[in-house]
Amino acid sequence: MTREQCTAAILEAKTMKGLSFQKIADHVGRHVVWTTAALLGQHPMSADEARKVVEILGLEGSVSLALQQFPMRGSLVQSPPTDSVIYRFYEIVQVYGTTLKAVIHEEFGDGIMSAIDFSMDVQRVPDPKGDRVRVTMEGKFLPYKKW
Amino acid sequence: MTREQCTAAILEAKTMKGLSFQKIADHVGRHVVWTTAALLGQHPMSADEARKVVEILGLEGSVSLALQQFPMRGSLVQSPPTDSVIYRFYEIVQVYGTTLKAVIHEEFGDGIMSAIDFSMDVQRVPDPKGDRVRVTMEGKFLPYKKW
Amino acid sequence: MTREQCTAAILEAKTMKGLSFQKIADHVGRHVVWTTAALLGQHPMSADEARKVVEILGLEGSVSLALQQFPMRGSLVQSPPTDSVIYRFYEIVQVYGTTLKAVIHEEFGDGIMSAIDFSMDVQRVPDPKGDRVRVTMEGKFLPYKKW
Amino acid sequence: MTREQCTAAILEAKTMKGLSFQKIADHVGRHVVWTTAALLGQHPMSADEARKVVEILGLEGSVSLALQQFPMRGSLVQSPPTDSVIYRFYEIVQVYGTTLKAVIHEEFGDGIMSAIDFSMDVQRVPDPKGDRVRVTMEGKFLPYKKW
Amino acid sequence: MTREQCTAAILEAKTMKGLSFQKIADHVGRHVVWTTAALLGQHPMSADEARKVVEILGLEGSVSLALQQFPMRGSLVQSPPTDSVIYRFYEIVQVYGTTLKAVIHEEFGDGIMSAIDFSMDVQRVPDPKGDRVRVTMEGKFLPYKKW
Amino acid sequence: MTREQCTAAILEAKTMKGLSFQKIADHVGRHVVWTTAALLGQHPMSADEARKVVEILGLEGSVSLALQQFPMRGSLVQSPPTDSVIYRFYEIVQVYGTTLKAVIHEEFGDGIMSAIDFSMDVQRVPDPKGDRVRVTMEGKFLPYKKW
Amino acid sequence: MTREQCTAAILEAKTMKGLSFQKIADHVGRHVVWTTAALLGQHPMSADEARKVVEILGLEGSVSLALQQFPMRGSLVQSPPTDSVIYRFYEIVQVYGTTLKAVIHEEFGDGIMSAIDFSMDVQRVPDPKGDRVRVTMEGKFLPYKKW
Amino acid sequence: MTREQCTAAILEAKTMKGLSFQKIADHVGRHVVWTTAALLGQHPMSADEARKVVEILGLEGSVSLALQQFPMRGSLVQSPPTDSVIYRFYEIVQVYGTTLKAVIHEEFGDGIMSAIDFSMDVQRVPDPKGDRVRVTMEGKFLPYKKW
Amino acid sequence: MTREQCTAAILEAKTMKGLSFQKIADHVGRHVVWTTAALLGQHPMSADEARKVVEILGLEGSVSLALQQFPMRGSLVQSPPTDSVIYRFYEIVQVYGTTLKAVIHEEFGDGIMSAIDFSMDVQRVPDPKGDRVRVTMEGKFLPYKKW
Amino acid sequence: MTREQCTAAILEAKTMKGLSFQKIADHVGRHVVWTTAALLGQHPMSADEARKVVEILGLEGSVSLALQQFPMRGSLVQSPPTDSVIYRFYEIVQVYGTTLKAVIHEEFGDGIMSAIDFSMDVQRVPDPKGDRVRVTMEGKFLPYKKW
Repeated sequence: MTREQCTAAILEAKTMKGLSFQKIADHVGRHVVWTTAALLGQHPMSADEARKVVEILGLEGSVSLALQQFPMRGSLVQSPPTDSVIYRFYEIVQVYGTTLKAVIHEEFGDGIMSAIDFSMDVQRVPDPKGDRVRVTMEGKFLPYKKW
Repeated sequence: MTREQCTAAILEAKTMKGLSFQKIADHVGRHVVWTTAALLGQHPMSADEARKVVEILGLEGSVSLALQQFPMRGSLVQSPPTDSVIYRFYEIVQVYGTTLKAVIHEEFGDGIMSAIDFSMDVQRVPDPKGDRVRVTMEGKFLPYKKW
Repeated sequence: MTREQCTAAILEAKTMKGLSFQKIADHVGRHVVWTTAALLGQHPMSADEARKVVEILGLEGSVSLALQQFPMRGSLVQSPPTDSVIYRFYEIVQVYGTTLKAVIHEEFGDGIMSAIDFSMDVQRVPDPKGDRVRVTMEGKFLPYKKW
Repeated sequence: MTREQCTAAILEAKTMKGLSFQKIADHVGRHVVWTTAALLGQHPMSADEARKVVEILGLEGSVSLALQQFPMRGSLVQSPPTDSVIYRFYEIVQVYGTTLKAVIHEEFGDGIMSAIDFSMDVQRVPDPKGDRVRVTMEGKFLPYKKW
Repeated sequence: MTREQCTAAILEAKTMKGLSFQKIADHVGRHVVWTTAALLGQHPMSADEARKVVEILGLEGSVSLALQQFPMRGSLVQSPPTDSVIYRFYEIVQVYGTTLKAVIHEEFGDGIMSAIDFSMDVQRVPDPKGDRVRVTMEGKFLPYKKW
Repeated sequence: MTREQCTAAILEAKTMKGLSFQKIADHVGRHVVWTTAALLGQHPMSADEARKVVEILGLEGSVSLALQQFPMRGSLVQSPPTDSVIYRFYEIVQVYGTTLKAVIHEEFGDGIMSAIDFSMDVQRVPDPKGDRVRVTMEGKFLPYKKW
Repeated sequence: MTREQCTAAILEAKTMKGLSFQKIADHVGRHVVWTTAALLGQHPMSADEARKVVEILGLEGSVSLALQQFPMRGSLVQSPPTDSVIYRFYEIVQVYGTTLKAVIHEEFGDGIMSAIDFSMDVQRVPDPKGDRVRVTMEGKFLPYKKW
Repeated sequence: MTREQCTAAILEAKTMKGLSFQKIADHVGRHVVWTTAALLGQHPMSADEARKVVEILGLEGSVSLALQQFPMRGSLVQSPPTDSVIYRFYEIVQVYGTTLKAVIHEEFGDGIMSAIDFSMDVQRVPDPKGDRVRVTMEGKFLPYKKW
Repeated sequence: MTREQCTAAILEAKTMKGLSFQKIADHVGRHVVWTTAALLGQHPMSADEARKVVEILGLEGSVSLALQQFPMRGSLVQSPPTDSVIYRFYEIVQVYGTTLKAVIHEEFGDGIMSAIDFSMDVQRVPDPKGDRVRVTMEGKFLPYKKW
Repeated sequence: MTREQCTAAILEAKTMKGLSFQKIADHVGRHVVWTTAALLGQHPMSADEARKVVEILGLEGSVSLALQQFPMRGSLVQSPPTDSVIYRFYEIVQVYGTTLKAVIHEEFGDGIMSAIDFSMDVQRVPDPKGDRVRVTMEGKFLPYKKW
């Protein structure tokens, strides 16, 4: 069972059972963003987490095995991405990339925001003029080593 | 005066005067992220904002004019970006792009987070194991129109 | 059933039944452009719209399910597109892109024409020297937010 | 004088004189979209049109000469375009390209909408929920020749 | 039956029957270049033309149906093309592209040679130093519209 | 003097003197297509041909020297070409590339049409429905060597 | 049977039978380099040559048919090639490409070394410091035609 | 003085003095291919070799210094190369790349032909049907190390 | 059995048997890095090594055969690589590439570090602030040949 | 003074003064690899380090200022790199990338080797069969965070 087949089986079962990513995440005991990323093949799960996914979705054991493998990360088949939702995030990197660099350097010095020791949240912010999507990214600041 | 020359003049004057982006933003009366993006050629300023930039940096009037033009947006010369700080944000889109799409669709329905009716903040989160960079993005949810 | 298989099944049934996109759109109760885009995998349908598609084309229920999924948008496998019809629209963006930017900025200020809160129509304009294709695009103007 | 220098000189003079593209177009006696495209180096002008441009902008004769040359068409330095305004039109081709092909073929048969025997208009459509941008493209239908 | 499978079936049957493209074209009643392009998936055939192809090649009816669909045009999987025969034509565009533009503009004014209202012929020109290939392309001149 | 500067000087002088490519070609004693390609930096001229160019255009000797150098061939800065005139020829290779290969192989066997032992002509074909551009390419057939 | 399946079948049979490319070439009566290129899908064989390949490898007749087709030339799936052996030849073109051009022009005048009327040999040159690979390429000089 | 300026100065002086690459190579005491590559910025020269180049071309000392720097290798600005002479060598890698790999592996085992411990020669082979270019490449065979 | 199928079978069997790459390497009698590269299709094994792999993993003989073939080297499907682990090594080449060139040239002269006569090791370096990964690469210095 | 001009000035002065990177590094008090990377524009220096560089090279103060700026990292103008020395490191990532991923995952678990908290050394390893280049990379292991 390849990782792509694993992902397809999960999404199909999720639709059949009428489950949301939030529901699955609650059952697994992890945040919905991390759990969704793991289900979409971007993070490996522990044996226990994988067992719970298989349990709630009513899938066979080979899916559990596939969920525990170290995945080849990178979820986009084309770059720049063509899907409208994902492109907007790419556009933000295009427009604000040098700004993020300048502001981080000024505040923290020479280094980066880690994308590994990192977490992310997505929230709905009610607004009378139309609700807003709030995406919060948080990563450890890693200073460049000198030697 | 091209926009590139304008940006170069601003950065040089900023270094000479020992000013931070935060200081310039305070003087302009805008958020540091928006102001930095505008100085780096990604947003046009109003005549009043541009005047204040020229004032605090001690630059000539043609810079003020250049700051008010509608810019060609897109700050990266290479894609994917090679700089380590900026690449990490591209990597986040690579790894979490499909996750952001899935979670936004589940929470909001078919539509996107606007990158136009949009704001962003960068903050330092103190942490005994090493301070963290928190980037908050907030954009209006735009539902796809049916007709 | 993948979205590609769903699209293939729809096009095959459409040919067999001798139906036009306009006919299907009338049955669904939507504009022909929106309906065609949805059938070609660029928009999700409501349960009711999907049911009507399956009904008129005589297809099985799994097609209806596939039509309701949030699609990965982007209909071109190669960019620039090689097909002559589609390339002409790409050429228009190439030749008139900066013009559209200049005219929109002059008329509306700093912002964009939304491609989400957006509709499109295609019409035949009779002309003795050869009929003409008229494509009308209409999207909400979204001003860039300052903060 | 290269075409790029010609364009730069025109835009600078236009800003200095506080003229709009519409004003220049009225003086030239052409539509604002065509005139803007010509000023931005995508169409050659007649000797008379070029003279009027130089007249209203107060520029020297070499600009007039440059405006009459056959230009190398194609206004985008990067593809896909990074600027937000222009990208939305590219996105429309991505999302609706196959739809435009399907609808044109169904209505007209095998052929294309010409991008040469072609005109375009941009209009403001007032709307209480936010004004809308309407772009109308019209090109002659050219049937594929058989032989 | 996809268009690729249709093309494969045609080429296989053509080899089995020992037919040439010229023979098939004569049976169809069209020029060999147009017919070959149609068989290779670049032009749609009329119902009558498709029937004749199926007849002479001894193929089933679904091939006839596939031959009548509007094809996605573009016959090259890689650009620049790697095949030696096809690359030479790409090389001619590389070396003589600006020359063709200059000569057409000088002779006809601002416009293009249509690739739609277009025909092409390939002929053998006997030559004692080695026979020559003569390719004749003829397309309607389309002047750029002003408005 | 670089080749680009040489080309620019030639085009400028040609405009000033009001000469056509045909006039220059007649003075040089070569075909207009070959001469235009040479002037645009795609072919080297003999000392005598270069002298005649300099003579008719009233240019200095260094232009003559530049015209005699072996050029780096390839006249397009972007591929696929964005200019409408040149793109149509690229489109012809896209749509008819495999057809040209098939027809040449069938008529001549395994080999290519040379782009070196090659000549080209552009002619105006009067037509009541609109004049046509005829491009004739002729190259020696080169059979693939076996060994 | 596609050409790829044909190649796979040949390589499998070659391994099973323990044959070398040299052995097959001797049986076919052609040079080992030409024969290997033909077996790998870069050259068509005559009916007699194809029959001998099928004979020595114990394959079925459809392989013989596939070997006689005009192949789409170009053996590399990625460019630049990633395989170490093949990349070194690409590197030689990168490092010595302009040198080859300069030396050929100086010795022969304006023209090319044909890659069609062309043969190649690979030999082992014994050397006490480590044997050497000698690759000899020989192609007809083709002078650029003037007209 | 950049390496590009150094190369330009050398080529200009070579044309002025009417020298061939062979003449310069004889004066330097190296093979014409190696010398040409070094003059075109692909190999560094020893102090003595650089002095001789400056001497025979009548250039200043800074050229000598530039000739001794370690160059950034890679002589092609575009890949695939557009120039006809250089492309033919790229085409040979495309068509014969897998063949070269197969034949070298069969004759030598797992390893490569070095492009570093490497030399090359270009010779004219007289032939009544048209002289031929012979390019001989010779590189040390380097077996892959196992550990 | 293709090399990809061979790799998949090996990884599946390895998971089933609960073996580590180190264990397999010990059984084969080779270093873990070399062995892993061979199992992942980047190096050919000897008949004896391949037999041992099949033995410990309980696989059929065709896997052994596949392991002995000369592989097409290059393990990345996309370049730059999207996976976070592999990208960091690409980033090191981006950031330190010119440094490695400068330091190697200064210490060794004009030449390269061989990637063929080459070995690599990965080790865990305990560190109270977090363990470190040490990658040691060692390749023969190959001086550029002059001739 | 741009960073490129800064680098050029440093390399010129270094050649004039006959200094090695090692000598400059010793004077600065940093490792030769880090110092070279900083001089080539990949790391910012402290005010004190920059002063020492200016001192030993006899350069003006603006160089010192440029050395302290946060650089846009990424030293390669083309990817894949064309220079032979740098390409070999890219080739190592191509051939051993998946191996490095597999071995690091097996030894450390899910995470990466940091390229920020990272150091590198280059050493000469004497060997009677030819000295060897040893490159040692060491980066902190960063485990992927779960949340």
